Amino acid sequence: MASTEVREISFGGGRFVGDTDPIMERFNASIAYDKRMWDADIRGSKAYVKALEKTKLVTTNEMNQILQGLDQISEEWSKSAFVIKPGDEDIHTANERRLKELIGAPAGKLHTGRSRNDQVVTDMRLWLRDAITTLTDNALQLMSTMVERAAAEIDVLFPGYTHMQRAQPIRWSHWILSHAVALSRDVDRLQEIKKRVNVLPLGSGAIAGTPFDIDRELLRKELEFDGISINSMDATGQRDFVAEFLFWASLCLTHLSKMAEDLMLYSTKEFSFISLSDAYSTGSSLMPQKKNADSLELIRSKAGRVFGSCAGFMMTLKGLPSTYNKDLQEDKEAMFDCYDTVHAVLQVTTGVMSTLKINQSVMQAALSPDMLATDLAYYLVRQGVPFREAHDLSALSPLFGSDVSLVWDYSSSVEQYQAPGGTAKSSVSAQVDHLRDWLKKQTQ
Amino acid sequence: MASTEVREISFGGGRFVGDTDPIMERFNASIAYDKRMWDADIRGSKAYVKALEKTKLVTTNEMNQILQGLDQISEEWSKSAFVIKPGDEDIHTANERRLKELIGAPAGKLHTGRSRNDQVVTDMRLWLRDAITTLTDNALQLMSTMVERAAAEIDVLFPGYTHMQRAQPIRWSHWILSHAVALSRDVDRLQEIKKRVNVLPLGSGAIAGTPFDIDRELLRKELEFDGISINSMDATGQRDFVAEFLFWASLCLTHLSKMAEDLMLYSTKEFSFISLSDAYSTGSSLMPQKKNADSLELIRSKAGRVFGSCAGFMMTLKGLPSTYNKDLQEDKEAMFDCYDTVHAVLQVTTGVMSTLKINQSVMQAALSPDMLATDLAYYLVRQGVPFREAHDLSALSPLFGSDVSLVWDYSSSVEQYQAPGGTAKSSVSAQVDHLRDWLKKQTQ
Amino acid sequence: MASTEVREISFGGGRFVGDTDPIMERFNASIAYDKRMWDADIRGSKAYVKALEKTKLVTTNEMNQILQGLDQISEEWSKSAFVIKPGDEDIHTANERRLKELIGAPAGKLHTGRSRNDQVVTDMRLWLRDAITTLTDNALQLMSTMVERAAAEIDVLFPGYTHMQRAQPIRWSHWILSHAVALSRDVDRLQEIKKRVNVLPLGSGAIAGTPFDIDRELLRKELEFDGISINSMDATGQRDFVAEFLFWASLCLTHLSKMAEDLMLYSTKEFSFISLSDAYSTGSSLMPQKKNADSLELIRSKAGRVFGSCAGFMMTLKGLPSTYNKDLQEDKEAMFDCYDTVHAVLQVTTGVMSTLKINQSVMQAALSPDMLATDLAYYLVRQGVPFREAHDLSALSPLFGSDVSLVWDYSSSVEQYQAPGGTAKSSVSAQVDHLRDWLKKQTQ
Amino acid sequence: MASTEVREISFGGGRFVGDTDPIMERFNASIAYDKRMWDADIRGSKAYVKALEKTKLVTTNEMNQILQGLDQISEEWSKSAFVIKPGDEDIHTANERRLKELIGAPAGKLHTGRSRNDQVVTDMRLWLRDAITTLTDNALQLMSTMVERAAAEIDVLFPGYTHMQRAQPIRWSHWILSHAVALSRDVDRLQEIKKRVNVLPLGSGAIAGTPFDIDRELLRKELEFDGISINSMDATGQRDFVAEFLFWASLCLTHLSKMAEDLMLYSTKEFSFISLSDAYSTGSSLMPQKKNADSLELIRSKAGRVFGSCAGFMMTLKGLPSTYNKDLQEDKEAMFDCYDTVHAVLQVTTGVMSTLKINQSVMQAALSPDMLATDLAYYLVRQGVPFREAHDLSALSPLFGSDVSLVWDYSSSVEQYQAPGGTAKSSVSAQVDHLRDWLKKQTQ
Repeated sequence: MASTEVREISFGGGRFVGDTDPIMERFNASIAYDKRMWDADIRGSKAYVKALEKTKLVTTNEMNQILQGLDQISEEWSKSAFVIKPGDEDIHTANERRLKELIGAPAGKLHTGRSRNDQVVTDMRLWLRDAITTLTDNALQLMSTMVERAAAEIDVLFPGYTHMQRAQPIRWSHWILSHAVALSRDVDRLQEIKKRVNVLPLGSGAIAGTPFDIDRELLRKELEFDGISINSMDATGQRDFVAEFLFWASLCLTHLSKMAEDLMLYSTKEFSFISLSDAYSTGSSLMPQKKNADSLELIRSKAGRVFGSCAGFMMTLKGLPSTYNKDLQEDKEAMFDCYDTVHAVLQVTTGVMSTLKINQSVMQAALSPDMLATDLAYYLVRQGVPFREAHDLSALSPLFGSDVSLVWDYSSSVEQYQAPGGTAKSSVSAQVDHLRDWLKKQTQ
Repeated sequence: MASTEVREISFGGGRFVGDTDPIMERFNASIAYDKRMWDADIRGSKAYVKALEKTKLVTTNEMNQILQGLDQISEEWSKSAFVIKPGDEDIHTANERRLKELIGAPAGKLHTGRSRNDQVVTDMRLWLRDAITTLTDNALQLMSTMVERAAAEIDVLFPGYTHMQRAQPIRWSHWILSHAVALSRDVDRLQEIKKRVNVLPLGSGAIAGTPFDIDRELLRKELEFDGISINSMDATGQRDFVAEFLFWASLCLTHLSKMAEDLMLYSTKEFSFISLSDAYSTGSSLMPQKKNADSLELIRSKAGRVFGSCAGFMMTLKGLPSTYNKDLQEDKEAMFDCYDTVHAVLQVTTGVMSTLKINQSVMQAALSPDMLATDLAYYLVRQGVPFREAHDLSALSPLFGSDVSLVWDYSSSVEQYQAPGGTAKSSVSAQVDHLRDWLKKQTQ
Repeated sequence: MASTEVREISFGGGRFVGDTDPIMERFNASIAYDKRMWDADIRGSKAYVKALEKTKLVTTNEMNQILQGLDQISEEWSKSAFVIKPGDEDIHTANERRLKELIGAPAGKLHTGRSRNDQVVTDMRLWLRDAITTLTDNALQLMSTMVERAAAEIDVLFPGYTHMQRAQPIRWSHWILSHAVALSRDVDRLQEIKKRVNVLPLGSGAIAGTPFDIDRELLRKELEFDGISINSMDATGQRDFVAEFLFWASLCLTHLSKMAEDLMLYSTKEFSFISLSDAYSTGSSLMPQKKNADSLELIRSKAGRVFGSCAGFMMTLKGLPSTYNKDLQEDKEAMFDCYDTVHAVLQVTTGVMSTLKINQSVMQAALSPDMLATDLAYYLVRQGVPFREAHDLSALSPLFGSDVSLVWDYSSSVEQYQAPGGTAKSSVSAQVDHLRDWLKKQTQ
Repeated sequence: MASTEVREISFGGGRFVGDTDPIMERFNASIAYDKRMWDADIRGSKAYVKALEKTKLVTTNEMNQILQGLDQISEEWSKSAFVIKPGDEDIHTANERRLKELIGAPAGKLHTGRSRNDQVVTDMRLWLRDAITTLTDNALQLMSTMVERAAAEIDVLFPGYTHMQRAQPIRWSHWILSHAVALSRDVDRLQEIKKRVNVLPLGSGAIAGTPFDIDRELLRKELEFDGISINSMDATGQRDFVAEFLFWASLCLTHLSKMAEDLMLYSTKEFSFISLSDAYSTGSSLMPQKKNADSLELIRSKAGRVFGSCAGFMMTLKGLPSTYNKDLQEDKEAMFDCYDTVHAVLQVTTGVMSTLKINQSVMQAALSPDMLATDLAYYLVRQGVPFREAHDLSALSPLFGSDVSLVWDYSSSVEQYQAPGGTAKSSVSAQVDHLRDWLKKQTQ
């Protein structure tokens, strides 16, 4: 149509007229990052071809050819010998293209009744399931390091702070365990997410399900999923498991940012409670005397990074219509970066916690009599003074007897806190025992 | 010191010199919003005084006075007769001040061994536990409405869309259930959060625990918590349960923003699949003919609001040192607003879903032959053509036999999708049954 | 239609069947918060009726009636005598309803050619313009306090920190000014936003513009806007100015969170560089000896809160189709809360900065010889040693002459940093002068 | 110390004991991404050595050696011949290491008085300045395409929507320009940011400034900055310009997400107003008939991605103490990814807008008489009926005269909207002229 042609010319100020736009193609392609899922993609295809064979959509012979071809592709990937070619826009087309090169015609049957929509999300779930296993191990190793350190250093006292002000004497181990307990909740949450990750979407097609007699139970067993998705539209269009994982990582790293902040305070010249191993510190390009706690600063910063991924992905999801929309392609980079970040942070934190040195004498010296004011108030309470009055008492009370001196001792002070969760030795030991048991259960 | 005085004068350009700053006092006060927790605060105090009595820190008589006083305060609140006075900076000081007015001296003993730090978080957990119960009910009612609607309208077909383009014929009920399934995950997640909310922090003091022989198990039973916090520093300084709740709400409302977006499309003039009840629409101040789907737009928008609260609170948490810091005061407004928002959204969505009318003939008419192209390709697949070839076939194939006409029927089309999760009647019915069972279990 | 009735019964499991849904009505109403714009709404209407009169859509007599009525409403609001009635869903309907009560029929002409869409956004722009003026004043007062304090205390030295580790001796005033400079950028940015806020949208109708001969230039002058919106669809549907304002607040409060974090460190027992005025500190409910820097913690926390509003609103905007959608109703609460928060934070920070006391002797004592290592390296550089070697020199160099002792003096050290922006007295004084000039220009 | 050794063994459960931790080293390194700034780094160093020569810290001969060495390094980078070696943790160490290899000893003098802190931020500002120039060009080209298209298609009418419901007839060009106007604000904002990016931080050292007689004005001129940073602590520790850029990108892409959402609606089967060029659409792996608007979905999604970077970086900044902290290392990946994303999105959008085809007959046919209800009300208003009554009139009014038929014409309808910003031809043409002028000014 003439008018259209005219229009194309008039908007030729636009950057592109033609059949393809190289910028659009790069924009659209995901192979640069989704190739990480090559193994999941192959595993998914191997299971799928078995279901196809069971329903006679491929012959046993074709199935075997396909399985062999897929094994060969797997070997190529694992040996870094797989060559990505122009046109391989994602890992799925890449593997499929290669299969066709290797085995010819039967390759064309592998995609029968399968859609990119259910294939992608199956691959992601397989990948993330493994990633969660690794992160669980990383978290447990960090916790174990912390719990054992708490057990070993249970006799070290130092100031507990609230509002960044010295509050009451506590055990160093009590502090360590306060962070270990937070991590145990992170592990619990991660297991809950894993349950929801570990659900088979394959067999959902593009939107309506599969019209062939695909045995989804067979697929589930082959791929070791715990369950089968309930509704095909939901299965292909939801990314709850990614959003949950991103938020999980955010909360976990917020915990570590808290611990890092404490440790940074403790490693200032002014506090001098701890010093980091050289492996986790660096010097300054300008100031020869400096030793910076880079590892802790990096740990602290990463909470922002992963929460940024979570925020970005949630914003991408907001207001999307249901089922698959290309916007969902944002899921993978967020998921990978988040995994890489948490994977590194957990290991570095383990390194920091297993190698830092405490300066016990400085810790002890930082305890000051004013930190026993609460105990003094409690002494008066035991003598029958209402707490609100005892708290306000600022001068020496006539109620002080000779036993008040017992209060003025940091070790006695902490030993009063014997209720569950308190900082007395028995209570901290009970926490150590509790977490050791908990850790044992996790690895059974 | 003279120089200091001089300084105070020289910086008198500053807005304030004096003992108190009214702006700071308002900035610091939380009574305007935390008064919502009056009941939780009283319940917590009633349990606490029983523990004090058991350990002889208050006499039985004092306990009874305190309990009676607290009951009276409770009555005042429930009758809106409680008067907040200047100086009542939060609900805890307000209730304590009132108790002193009512019963005098014994009131001063109630706070023995308790800190604002463990008191606040106990109140929040009690409040949120109830809130979660209500939201669960709201979500289940919405799901029930949806499931029953799906059951009743199972024979209605309409286009399924991917990428906002017509994809394949599906059942309207299949669409409804795709959203109900997402909600069932929301309910599951909310129950997991409830488990972690329902843990007693009371008895953790400010940081170190309690030095008195407070029976935390007694407190747990009185307040019907499932468990007891493990570490006092963690118990008073962590707000995981708030962050989890805020994210839960964000994901839940992201689901509803998705459903709202679909429904908005369906209620455009161009689609005309549905029309909202007048109760959920409004007119225009300028355009007499307009009927706007305000309810759906509000539902869609609220995902942003609650995720904003989540983002804000996570940012507030990031990099905080451990234990209680005043920054945590941001927790309550976020939690309340989030509850109010989700509470309203779930109910409004239930209203929308129970009253909207579908235009079945328009839905049916929107099915077009090109939407059967996949089925046609599958027909060829069944004749032995590899799927990748069948997919590319654009002209009439010599392989078409007389049975091809069966494919060209929308009802036959959907009936092919019988695998679990598919859009065939049997499969959709199975989904309805599954969700009915699930709902029944939730309310047992 | 019978089937429909049946359906309404079958979904009666839904929470509501009827003409109106009270929850929906509350959900939809904005009067609870948008009543803050009563004055802007009246000013906008007064200008609009003048434009209507000019184009003869109302008579001069009608105009005068309307103007008088609006003045009376204004008086009612300013005396808190305005009564909001059921059905007043927003400030615009409330004022219009009241006008009709007061003057009868002519009130019905005020909305001619105006839409709620252009009215709302006009009100918001008028309101925000005033709010920005106030916040600018608040920021300038804070800066002024800081600059004068920097001028007065220019001789105080203390450690400059990087990575929270002592780095080099600097002037306390250098530190103060580093934060004042950040605030000057905030003020600059706020003025840029004000320019974009101060654009007239009125006369854009609902979407297409106004079909009457409304003199938009007259409206602009009456309402003292700087310019007129270019496109009616953009004018009614964009909320850039809100988003910009929310982000402005976020960045501004991030600056104050940084200053608060520094001050919190400086006010720990371990640093003891400063102490806050009692007006900005509070005690502990449990620990009598504690003095917590609550003001600083609140300042630090609010960056999260306002960024949360920004994140929420951006997420709400994402993916909305153009022109007015009800989702935009999220704009006002975010804008108001953000203003209130920044307004309070700036004033509290001014109070903190004008009243805190520094402990000069502790600051001085915190300077340690190792902090001069950079200077020592520079000494060697001046003797011709390449910097990279000088930096690595760990033992006493034969190049040290008698003048090396000059380096070992903190005052001499800082006096070396005379290049613009450095910590030498002349350089810091130049910064003070620069900012005093800048402040003078802002208030002209 | 023996006890320490014991401890190291006991925490050997930890993953690492040794002098370096390879995971920490990777975690710490930035060369993988900051190598993009190789050119900025070299330009900064070339300017710096000139300042060193002026102040006699290097001889003219040394300067020339350094300049030649840097030129050679530049050539290596531009030919992709530069080899990154183990130990090159960032682009600065890489270039410095290579310089030493090339010219030996004098290389060691280049860093005199410079810190990594002022070097990094100088490089970032140089890089971002160029990036902003490119993005400005991209945005202007998109705007130009849109404005010319609006000029060419000014006679096309179609429905204007509010709340996704047909509202009033408008010109297609009016719609196009509503988005172009938003982009013009984006360009304005970007220029404001550029002003603040274009400030020289070099000469600020690590924190205190430079103790040598470095001529910062010379540096400014050499590097073509507009101004010089005022305070060295602020200069090295602030990243406002990055945060501003990230938010700029977020708001800009929110605009494009809005336009994409509109276009996606218009390209549904149901609307059928436009069709995308094949270059910007893709097919389905399962459904042969489908044509998906992938480009639009990607555009829509990227608003989330860049806002995620913004949110993440703001969260990282929150609560950091002042000056350089390693946390700031998060700045670069966010900045690069954001640039890449906006760079691609703007170009793809230009491609989409220059090649999409409109279906004028469908657009015209979508106009329906009910959309003229506002005009009818206005007709009555012109007969003297108060607008509020006219709006409610639902039956034929006796006031209708023979001229009412003029209203019942879509072209007449739009021609009424002649006030500035309206949808009449004269008004839309004026918008085109305004934007053409504005564009001309931008490129002068």
